[in-house]
Amino acid sequence: MDTQQRRILLLSTSVVYGSEYLHYATDDINKFLKKYNVSRILFVPYALNDYNEYANKVTGAFEKWGYKVNSIHTSEDPVQAVEEAEAFFVGGGNTFQLLKALYDFKIIDPIKKRVLEEGIPYIGSSAGSNVATVSICTTNDMPIVHPPSFTALGLIPFNINPHYLDDNPTTHMGETREQRIEQYHRIPGAPPVVGLREGSLLHIEGDKITLVGKCSARIFSPGKNPEEYEAGSDLSFLLKAV
Amino acid sequence: MDTQQRRILLLSTSVVYGSEYLHYATDDINKFLKKYNVSRILFVPYALNDYNEYANKVTGAFEKWGYKVNSIHTSEDPVQAVEEAEAFFVGGGNTFQLLKALYDFKIIDPIKKRVLEEGIPYIGSSAGSNVATVSICTTNDMPIVHPPSFTALGLIPFNINPHYLDDNPTTHMGETREQRIEQYHRIPGAPPVVGLREGSLLHIEGDKITLVGKCSARIFSPGKNPEEYEAGSDLSFLLKAV
Repeated sequence: MDTQQRRILLLSTSVVYGSEYLHYATDDINKFLKKYNVSRILFVPYALNDYNEYANKVTGAFEKWGYKVNSIHTSEDPVQAVEEAEAFFVGGGNTFQLLKALYDFKIIDPIKKRVLEEGIPYIGSSAGSNVATVSICTTNDMPIVHPPSFTALGLIPFNINPHYLDDNPTTHMGETREQRIEQYHRIPGAPPVVGLREGSLLHIEGDKITLVGKCSARIFSPGKNPEEYEAGSDLSFLLKAV
Repeated sequence: MDTQQRRILLLSTSVVYGSEYLHYATDDINKFLKKYNVSRILFVPYALNDYNEYANKVTGAFEKWGYKVNSIHTSEDPVQAVEEAEAFFVGGGNTFQLLKALYDFKIIDPIKKRVLEEGIPYIGSSAGSNVATVSICTTNDMPIVHPPSFTALGLIPFNINPHYLDDNPTTHMGETREQRIEQYHRIPGAPPVVGLREGSLLHIEGDKITLVGKCSARIFSPGKNPEEYEAGSDLSFLLKAV
């Protein structure tokens, strides 16, 4: 697959505490969409229950920036909507619900083809970032519905843990995030995991990844100690590892 | 099914920060096991990867109190081990891994039968408490393996969210625990959920449930506002609701 085409922006979250929807990422989203001359976005609202309400919120945010938005749930043929899309925005919510819908509507392969082979820009936020990776095995969400598989779009060869949280040594509520990721890495074949802190983004262009935002990211590779990478780091090695 | 037989102790966690394994629950576990004249425990280590190491830790804790422990992983026939057990202790770890193993080893129905029909005492901790409920849909764990279903043992007609955490208004990392449970309750047929705080236990005897420990519990019922119940509360209404 010609991964040189890849144009992906993955957000850890849609809201940084106390600010408006997507506000913190305004510059990064606009720079990304303008670079690829996008004027119309196909929104995927499946991670939440009320598709209309969710689509209105997202349309409001993107229209303010000058983009048109169609929500895939208003289309009679979701596969066709994917095939005609100029860019994707896959919103956050429950990752299990989102992935199950991608399977139910049979749009896993169509989205994958458009992003990897045709260079259609993909923006994901939270759950929408999780489904862009190898699998949803490192989501923080509750498994409220049962998807047929945890294998996701595989637009990149590693996983993300969005809203990554450091351990707070004064309280201990079940396993820490780091312990949970280590448990995952005992599963044979599990890929690296990027712990993406609130307000961080990954910008993937072909075979290059940049860590955007103000926070460092914590990267977990099976059999290695976790490593911190500063904001602005080139993380392209994650694409070459596999 | 004659639920009058039910003898179940469900712990939110195995370790309260800074203390030894199961230490905080010493009195409650011993009172429970002595009441039912248990001298030997069948341990289920499937929630973690190293069964031997886990079994040694658990054996150490229970032997100190005077109980013998057999770990089910050392048995050639797990179903037979369940059929001969005098009491169960199902330890914490990863809930998905635990439930998948219960399905793989075909011991879901055998455990259910022994607990509900024959009154065999069941102690669960964290993941071991999750699998005692209707489903694992309200676990906090990462979905590191894919069980064939999220339906669990169904020893009680509601779900638990162990290590329940209140929202911290100064930080906001993804959805709060309460928001995640509310998302679950939009799924038709989802049962009530008990948010069980660190150090809390549920003691279920026949059709009576008592909230044991020092913390209150937060109970979520579909279509209702969540309610707080003080430590020591009688929560038997949760068994009658369904």
